[in-house]
Amino acid sequence: MPLNKSKIYTYHLTARGYELDSYGHVNNAVYLNYTEQARWELFRELGLLDRLIADSNKVVIVENHVKYIRQVKLFDELTVETQLEKSAHFLLFHHHLLNVKTGKTVAKVTAKSVFLDKQNKPCDIPALLLEFLIQE
Amino acid sequence: MPLNKSKIYTYHLTARGYELDSYGHVNNAVYLNYTEQARWELFRELGLLDRLIADSNKVVIVENHVKYIRQVKLFDELTVETQLEKSAHFLLFHHHLLNVKTGKTVAKVTAKSVFLDKQNKPCDIPALLLEFLIQE
Amino acid sequence: MPLNKSKIYTYHLTARGYELDSYGHVNNAVYLNYTEQARWELFRELGLLDRLIADSNKVVIVENHVKYIRQVKLFDELTVETQLEKSAHFLLFHHHLLNVKTGKTVAKVTAKSVFLDKQNKPCDIPALLLEFLIQE
Amino acid sequence: MPLNKSKIYTYHLTARGYELDSYGHVNNAVYLNYTEQARWELFRELGLLDRLIADSNKVVIVENHVKYIRQVKLFDELTVETQLEKSAHFLLFHHHLLNVKTGKTVAKVTAKSVFLDKQNKPCDIPALLLEFLIQE
Repeated sequence: MPLNKSKIYTYHLTARGYELDSYGHVNNAVYLNYTEQARWELFRELGLLDRLIADSNKVVIVENHVKYIRQVKLFDELTVETQLEKSAHFLLFHHHLLNVKTGKTVAKVTAKSVFLDKQNKPCDIPALLLEFLIQE
Repeated sequence: MPLNKSKIYTYHLTARGYELDSYGHVNNAVYLNYTEQARWELFRELGLLDRLIADSNKVVIVENHVKYIRQVKLFDELTVETQLEKSAHFLLFHHHLLNVKTGKTVAKVTAKSVFLDKQNKPCDIPALLLEFLIQE
Repeated sequence: MPLNKSKIYTYHLTARGYELDSYGHVNNAVYLNYTEQARWELFRELGLLDRLIADSNKVVIVENHVKYIRQVKLFDELTVETQLEKSAHFLLFHHHLLNVKTGKTVAKVTAKSVFLDKQNKPCDIPALLLEFLIQE
Repeated sequence: MPLNKSKIYTYHLTARGYELDSYGHVNNAVYLNYTEQARWELFRELGLLDRLIADSNKVVIVENHVKYIRQVKLFDELTVETQLEKSAHFLLFHHHLLNVKTGKTVAKVTAKSVFLDKQNKPCDIPALLLEFLIQE
């Protein structure tokens, strides 16, 4: 049975002062900034960034599901663990945000994405990405 | 049977230039900015803003579920329709984002929130808010 | 003597909740968001937006000078008054941010910009813009 | 003659995807996010963060002067060098943003700040900060 999942990729960041809102914790929308950057880093790590740009492929988010579990404060160090999953022609990003110091889960984000071709039409997941999804 | 739902509140906005990302459309995280502001406007419209602050009540988002249906471009005018729903001690915000010109749905966002008291402990939905939830 | 200045254009906005930082007032960087949007609105009002895009002209900020005079709070209504000035091949935007309710100045921002052509090379201010700069 | 200047402090960052605007480079307002975070990091490095918070001291920016010299692209690594200077009761932050790979200057930002006490009234620069300003 195909698992269609990648290994887990890791991105580190430190919460910044201007990301706090009037409640003194990182604003709810900023978690989506963190996960977006985790995806850019992942594409770079896979060596896909230039090739996606060369092919005029875009990755567009069609769904974000965020569960906020613990608040994040100034200077909290976070790890964003990201696992890819193929689901039909969608690429899912399973993000797990952890507080490095406490080891505790801060948030879970599932982002569902679709690839667009040069004409901005939905297309299949590029073959060069599929090789990173383990078939068992 | 109690419906526990409010009427629908409306907030208007125009997409701004700095909200676009390198794809030339409004970035996925910005939709959460829009819905957050719709909630602030709603609390103001209900006359609750000062009283929540006076009671040191905070509204914290514990879950956001965003479905992106159509992209938003510079100067697109949007309406955010918001309906409240009580679900146990959670307050749900059902946001429906529409493009004013086309009348088409741009996104749907469900935000699940919990109220915190002065000690930042979860508490019941304030009574002054419950009166806006229709009991049938 | 040529004044090289335009008339004053006006853009209205209301400060949003997510624009506040942990000090409970609008963050210093957000003022640049406000002035950027005032410029987009101005270009639209002048009917230049589509033509600039059609000509692949970009307007790039090379300098921003912000004087913060009064803090801005949630729901404060602001007016951004903007006057254009030609200075050599630079286009200056003189922004004056006012609190609508109090009539008091909130900030003054001078943005110095340069136009880029299709090859991203600096070019003269487009002729279609010059007609809005009063020659006396 | 007193120099009233500190040594140079350094903060590193990598430009993120969501910080790009529709021109494909880091938006002009984001440079102020970078310099704000450089200041938070600096206060932490000096061991002042907790003491400023304990004393209810706030640092408020009253002026920002930004010169944009080179554009910043996705994944560009930047160094923000920051030097403090005392000028009457103002604290100046001289920020120099450099592209790590090219060694070239990306921007120069001078932020003029004033300290506020518990009552949000302007006050002198806290004594615990003055010791980091070299008197010659």
